[in-house]
Amino acid sequence: MLLDNIKHPRDLKKIPASDLPLVAHEIRQKIIEVVSKSGGHLASSLGAVEIIIALHYCLNTPEDKIIWDVGHQAYAHKILTGRYHAFDSLRQFGGISGFPTASESEFDTFTSGHASTAVSLGLGLATARDLENRKEKIVAVIGDGSLTGGLCFEALNNAGHLKKDIIIILNSNEMSISPSVGSLTTYLNKIISQPIYNRFRQALQNFIKHRIPHVGTRMLKLAAKFEEVLKGLIVPGIFFEELGFRYFGPLDGHNLEVLIPTLRNIIPLKEPRLIHVITQKGKGYPPAEQNAEKFHSAANFDIVTGKSKDAAAFKKTTSYTETFSSTLLDLARENPKIVAITAAMPEGTGLDIFRDNFPDRFFDVGIAEGHAVCFAAGLAKGGLRPVVAIYSTFLQRAFDQIIEEIALQKLPVVLAIDRAGIVGEDGMTHQGIFDIAYLLQIPDMVIMAPSDLKELSWMLEFAVKQDFPCAIRYPKDKLVPEQLQHEINKIQLGKTETLKSGKDVAILALGSMVKVTLEAAEELRHQGIEARVVNCRFAKPLDEAFLKDLSQEFKKIITAEEGIIEGGFGMQVSEKLHQFNNSVQVKIIGLPDEFITHGKRSLLLSNYGLDSPGVARQVKDFIKR
Amino acid sequence: MLLDNIKHPRDLKKIPASDLPLVAHEIRQKIIEVVSKSGGHLASSLGAVEIIIALHYCLNTPEDKIIWDVGHQAYAHKILTGRYHAFDSLRQFGGISGFPTASESEFDTFTSGHASTAVSLGLGLATARDLENRKEKIVAVIGDGSLTGGLCFEALNNAGHLKKDIIIILNSNEMSISPSVGSLTTYLNKIISQPIYNRFRQALQNFIKHRIPHVGTRMLKLAAKFEEVLKGLIVPGIFFEELGFRYFGPLDGHNLEVLIPTLRNIIPLKEPRLIHVITQKGKGYPPAEQNAEKFHSAANFDIVTGKSKDAAAFKKTTSYTETFSSTLLDLARENPKIVAITAAMPEGTGLDIFRDNFPDRFFDVGIAEGHAVCFAAGLAKGGLRPVVAIYSTFLQRAFDQIIEEIALQKLPVVLAIDRAGIVGEDGMTHQGIFDIAYLLQIPDMVIMAPSDLKELSWMLEFAVKQDFPCAIRYPKDKLVPEQLQHEINKIQLGKTETLKSGKDVAILALGSMVKVTLEAAEELRHQGIEARVVNCRFAKPLDEAFLKDLSQEFKKIITAEEGIIEGGFGMQVSEKLHQFNNSVQVKIIGLPDEFITHGKRSLLLSNYGLDSPGVARQVKDFIKR
Repeated sequence: MLLDNIKHPRDLKKIPASDLPLVAHEIRQKIIEVVSKSGGHLASSLGAVEIIIALHYCLNTPEDKIIWDVGHQAYAHKILTGRYHAFDSLRQFGGISGFPTASESEFDTFTSGHASTAVSLGLGLATARDLENRKEKIVAVIGDGSLTGGLCFEALNNAGHLKKDIIIILNSNEMSISPSVGSLTTYLNKIISQPIYNRFRQALQNFIKHRIPHVGTRMLKLAAKFEEVLKGLIVPGIFFEELGFRYFGPLDGHNLEVLIPTLRNIIPLKEPRLIHVITQKGKGYPPAEQNAEKFHSAANFDIVTGKSKDAAAFKKTTSYTETFSSTLLDLARENPKIVAITAAMPEGTGLDIFRDNFPDRFFDVGIAEGHAVCFAAGLAKGGLRPVVAIYSTFLQRAFDQIIEEIALQKLPVVLAIDRAGIVGEDGMTHQGIFDIAYLLQIPDMVIMAPSDLKELSWMLEFAVKQDFPCAIRYPKDKLVPEQLQHEINKIQLGKTETLKSGKDVAILALGSMVKVTLEAAEELRHQGIEARVVNCRFAKPLDEAFLKDLSQEFKKIITAEEGIIEGGFGMQVSEKLHQFNNSVQVKIIGLPDEFITHGKRSLLLSNYGLDSPGVARQVKDFIKR
Repeated sequence: MLLDNIKHPRDLKKIPASDLPLVAHEIRQKIIEVVSKSGGHLASSLGAVEIIIALHYCLNTPEDKIIWDVGHQAYAHKILTGRYHAFDSLRQFGGISGFPTASESEFDTFTSGHASTAVSLGLGLATARDLENRKEKIVAVIGDGSLTGGLCFEALNNAGHLKKDIIIILNSNEMSISPSVGSLTTYLNKIISQPIYNRFRQALQNFIKHRIPHVGTRMLKLAAKFEEVLKGLIVPGIFFEELGFRYFGPLDGHNLEVLIPTLRNIIPLKEPRLIHVITQKGKGYPPAEQNAEKFHSAANFDIVTGKSKDAAAFKKTTSYTETFSSTLLDLARENPKIVAITAAMPEGTGLDIFRDNFPDRFFDVGIAEGHAVCFAAGLAKGGLRPVVAIYSTFLQRAFDQIIEEIALQKLPVVLAIDRAGIVGEDGMTHQGIFDIAYLLQIPDMVIMAPSDLKELSWMLEFAVKQDFPCAIRYPKDKLVPEQLQHEINKIQLGKTETLKSGKDVAILALGSMVKVTLEAAEELRHQGIEARVVNCRFAKPLDEAFLKDLSQEFKKIITAEEGIIEGGFGMQVSEKLHQFNNSVQVKIIGLPDEFITHGKRSLLLSNYGLDSPGVARQVKDFIKR
């Protein structure tokens, strides 16, 4: 294996260019093998292999800096920068991260995970380099999906203005996560399929044909020469040229014989430049080539068939996402005013089914969470009932729009916050741990968290009927529908439901922690501790009358949530309880004030005491105190 | 006065077009008169008068919807939509808001205040209209500054794709708040001064001249015809055309004889269209024409001279902004690694002085807060010490970048958060009340708030020396430097300082509340209550050892902050205190869970009990309990 001898990009540079396709092949085999076991972002990583080889072949990393937008395409980069063997531990607790991670390698300039940041970060590096009189090259690698994010545009606009020596590699694979949308994507496809220049050529030909019917050879020759002048003026990437970038491309992003000489020509230049490269997602693995969406972020799978291995194990379970998906479809059938919005995640959020049933009422706005929320405000003002489904971590990007355009305007938008809490293998940049805290501080927000699938349905049904904003947060988890405990209680604004009686201690659990707490209470019961378990349902508003009574009845009260403690649900409850009864003791169970690494969701929850033994242990310790 | 008879836009329509310039004149006089007393956004409102007249003249408002981006240009809109007389109460408590406000008028489609949202909101309205089979027209009015915001680009990209009937009025005044930056602005200026078409014409002429020396008349005629073909193909707004908009313009935005017929032609069309209009900020008031930056958001002034009336009253005071400005300049002289970033607010943040002294180390990125923070992360990674100065309310837009690019990467970026707390007359959309809460939940953030000008200097000096992220929040306020109480204590991470001893109650005050609390304590002393007053300095990290001791020493402890209580400083302190001593009683003084209207800062603070009598009263009530 050639890869055995590549411990550093300098080893790659010793390999003759003619052998590089073999390196690409070995990298692909390694990626497929590891991801088939550990899961991961297969399709985009397979698509970027040659780009990554070419960059490390032509640059002097780590002195020269590569910044990976999003970062889920960088597996080959990890393999070529001393992590070939460690790559077996991909996405596992204690193993290497699925995203570039600064603490893992000096080759990972930034820890990345969210889209559309690379140009901005790269421009910062380039500006610092110039002020410090250094000479390193800065390359930001972005996808066409990244371009739909406003942050990327803000940075391009600023980069063209500052005229820094910076290289943008635009990796166009005609889809962000699912096929990307927006007129800029159409524009990029037009560049690829029919450069603007072609349109001019056609215009010229029409002109010659229709207006100069008796044209001589000399005229045709002149026309050909004029065409050349035009070609020089009308480059395909005029959009980027207008933003101050020199545009090169489009190039075949899998052809190293094109990529390497082009990079060698372009790297020494000094101005802002954009190299447009066309690649195929999933390249080299037929199942991923054919279904790049499925293999965008895949669970483990059988290499030969491409089929998910977990399918069998999970067949009796249903995910929160699936429940959201089917419930929304049912509700939309009854109410024609319901519309759905995703930010480039129709499959991940389960809205693909809505899209297929109600194409006119479905909107994929691209990787543009701020616009998704702001657009929803407009839809709500126009009389519709928009449901915006976004992962907790990405909704951070719409924080201002939730405050200013949703809550302040009191518009009936439903925020369906998927992947709330610990997301597991995607790790530090993707954990959905902040949403409770960042939403709680916003006046007029209503925040719910279901304890099981059925309750998610009820909450969604409740939410689309209100005339104020509602958020529902639910985890990346699956449950067995037959084992759901819910029978009776309908959702009422702010109201809790008590699931188990007990006199020794009261546990106020939110969302995913309800099931865990019930199990813990069962364990505690065997040890002679009778815990009352309350399903709080609402993080906001709180049921003050209920809390007042509780503060009189119990000396010790515990809250439990799958979110960061600072500013979260427990802190708000604790504050209220102390207002009612100063002597009540409150213990808050939740996630500590730190960023949380990658690993299996169940393992991480256990590490932080958010599984049933952990809760039981914390309750016992608290009672003893 | 013609305006006396305009109670509704339908009254405007009765006026013959030839009299409309008189209406414009009357509106300008009214705006100048009122703003000279109440302060406000003069320059942009004067610039938009004819656009507003033309829109209401040609549309059927309020059925047709106008959305004002930012909203500070809409004074003429208020005057023409039944608020001519109420306009005298502009920006005063209980009076009409300085920004479009949905609760104030059915003509104000949305409550606006933050930039770059109008296209997104308008696209939502247009989409809802089509799904509901209505026919109203939707017009979004944006400035060239709005275009630098990524959210606007996200929406344009989506709008071109959805192909909705929507009209964007791009009001180009060659500056956002200060002269705007970015290559797109350059591009717009190029459209205005030298259309792309001109470049082609030149190319054609060169071609004919140099390549066809012996050209006949027939050839020249052909060239002229070809030029026409080119003209049809190469419109000035190709950037917008590529995004799917039909481009019209540029038009003279002060010429109603151009605006009205053009609007009448364009309104009936059905596709996404952009009308590019050129206006002058401050139009019609020479002092504002000459200094549009000063008159962007002006305090009251003398109409004849244009000079600020408050200047005399305030001459012995210095603002936090001025102190930040001069301190940063001093620090930058010592440390060449310090660089400064603003998002279109060099004057507002006081960074204009830094710009003038260190033009190479100053970066105005436009209205692009996400990029400002992300760019700063790149600068920090590249070895510099970036200081990003952004108003509290606008920093909400960079929430995700503060988490992912600053805190998670532990990069030494200083966030200088101006206008933190109550901002006063700008009102609901601009209050800086969330920053403590939204930053506290972020791991590894350090958050400071100075109690006076000198402490702000110390904190800034401290912050630029740390190797981790630091935020400093300071209010829109002025102090008399001679009356500052600080003498001794240097800033130490997380450490408080006790400013007044007392045994009856302890008050933990943060930032602007320290001075208020000291005054309250003085009042209380006269009533026999001895309050200990602590200047906490840090909202995060908290001094746990200090809080532990305090929880043993006092039965009653009060916190005070100028920010929202939910998830804020007091809640975190209260939680810690209760952990140390369950029986301690804590009272949190801060702002309640609601959006806060406009009015004088001092009046609003008093209304919410955040002045010294209010604090004294709350302390007494708490002690009695």
